[in-house]
Amino acid sequence: MMKHLDQELDEVRTQLLEMAGRVEEMIADAGRALAERDSVLAGRVQRADQRVDSLEKEIDEACLAILALRDPKAADFRFVVAVQKIVGDLERMGDCAVNISKAVVRLNSESPFETFVDLPSLLERVRSMVRMSLDALVRRSVPLAQEVCEADDEVDALYGELFRQLVAIMQDRSENVNRALQLLLISRNLERIADHATNVAEDVIYYLEARDVRHPVGRSAEA
Amino acid sequence: MMKHLDQELDEVRTQLLEMAGRVEEMIADAGRALAERDSVLAGRVQRADQRVDSLEKEIDEACLAILALRDPKAADFRFVVAVQKIVGDLERMGDCAVNISKAVVRLNSESPFETFVDLPSLLERVRSMVRMSLDALVRRSVPLAQEVCEADDEVDALYGELFRQLVAIMQDRSENVNRALQLLLISRNLERIADHATNVAEDVIYYLEARDVRHPVGRSAEA
Repeated sequence: MMKHLDQELDEVRTQLLEMAGRVEEMIADAGRALAERDSVLAGRVQRADQRVDSLEKEIDEACLAILALRDPKAADFRFVVAVQKIVGDLERMGDCAVNISKAVVRLNSESPFETFVDLPSLLERVRSMVRMSLDALVRRSVPLAQEVCEADDEVDALYGELFRQLVAIMQDRSENVNRALQLLLISRNLERIADHATNVAEDVIYYLEARDVRHPVGRSAEA
Repeated sequence: MMKHLDQELDEVRTQLLEMAGRVEEMIADAGRALAERDSVLAGRVQRADQRVDSLEKEIDEACLAILALRDPKAADFRFVVAVQKIVGDLERMGDCAVNISKAVVRLNSESPFETFVDLPSLLERVRSMVRMSLDALVRRSVPLAQEVCEADDEVDALYGELFRQLVAIMQDRSENVNRALQLLLISRNLERIADHATNVAEDVIYYLEARDVRHPVGRSAEA
């Protein structure tokens, strides 16, 4: 008995939402591990990544099978192609959360940093971009997806400020270099998560509007 | 004692070449494991990925430290920024080789496929793109990098042909579906390796010519 295309697309959607939920949780936990100096929670983020990696492969293979065996048309085709790209971005967001949690463990082996570095604002902004990009997919909202693309400039500006502050801290006192470098790594990984959220938003726009905001030349029919 | 910027850049270059060499070997081994139905070799590819992953992190962190502490200018700045992007692409090429080797192990649990599917031509083309993109970096050759970008169209066309052939095979006899799907996964991972080689070539052009062929708007000074 062959399943119907609609049923297979629903299964892909369900798995994608599970994957998205797990990645969001990893990012939230990594942020909490940083704020509360919680190395146990940081370790949990690293273990959670395995399930995210296998979900990526499962969804990607399901999409490939649909493309090969069902020959989906129009919006269904674009949905499957967009999902293949989105799971790649979600998987890399998960990697970034793992990188953050490893930096947290390294930070926790030293005494807390006295200077306030505004990572919470950056984290907040990035998490909201991730949330919006996934909402845009679920609610099929082009305006929401466009908002994500615009928010990326703000994140880049915040990251730029943190970068300059942390470099100044490093130059100021050499005993700060290692900790400031870890904070720099964390902010850069947050900034990369925002880039991936922007990619997701662009894929949502492609899916909904049949236009590719990144590669105006168009894609091959084989995805 | 602080090291000199030149010395640090040389260390980055050395590590980058080690990483590139390992990734090329993984791709070659995955191809050989496929041709010779060698699951042991496929397993070796999967284990080799760990060193590639840790090299990515080491190089990336060294680059971040150089950007933060040395404030490199002009060509040095562009080199460091390009290397950060190149290691990301190399790491993903390694992931693709791992995906191929896993599909090889799954294929080897079934009897060989009777129909000839021309994966060797695709593999050959992709390996030559990877080689050229790294040669372009080492020899600082813009024309060579441009050749890589042009070769990508050929790979896309080869992949398109394989895709159609494999879909026809699946539709023809249902007992072929699983094996054809594994071959499809392998060809798609080869096609992705070619995409990453193209990214590397574009980063080489950015480094050498101070222009970004992908994002004409330009990058932020913080990379």
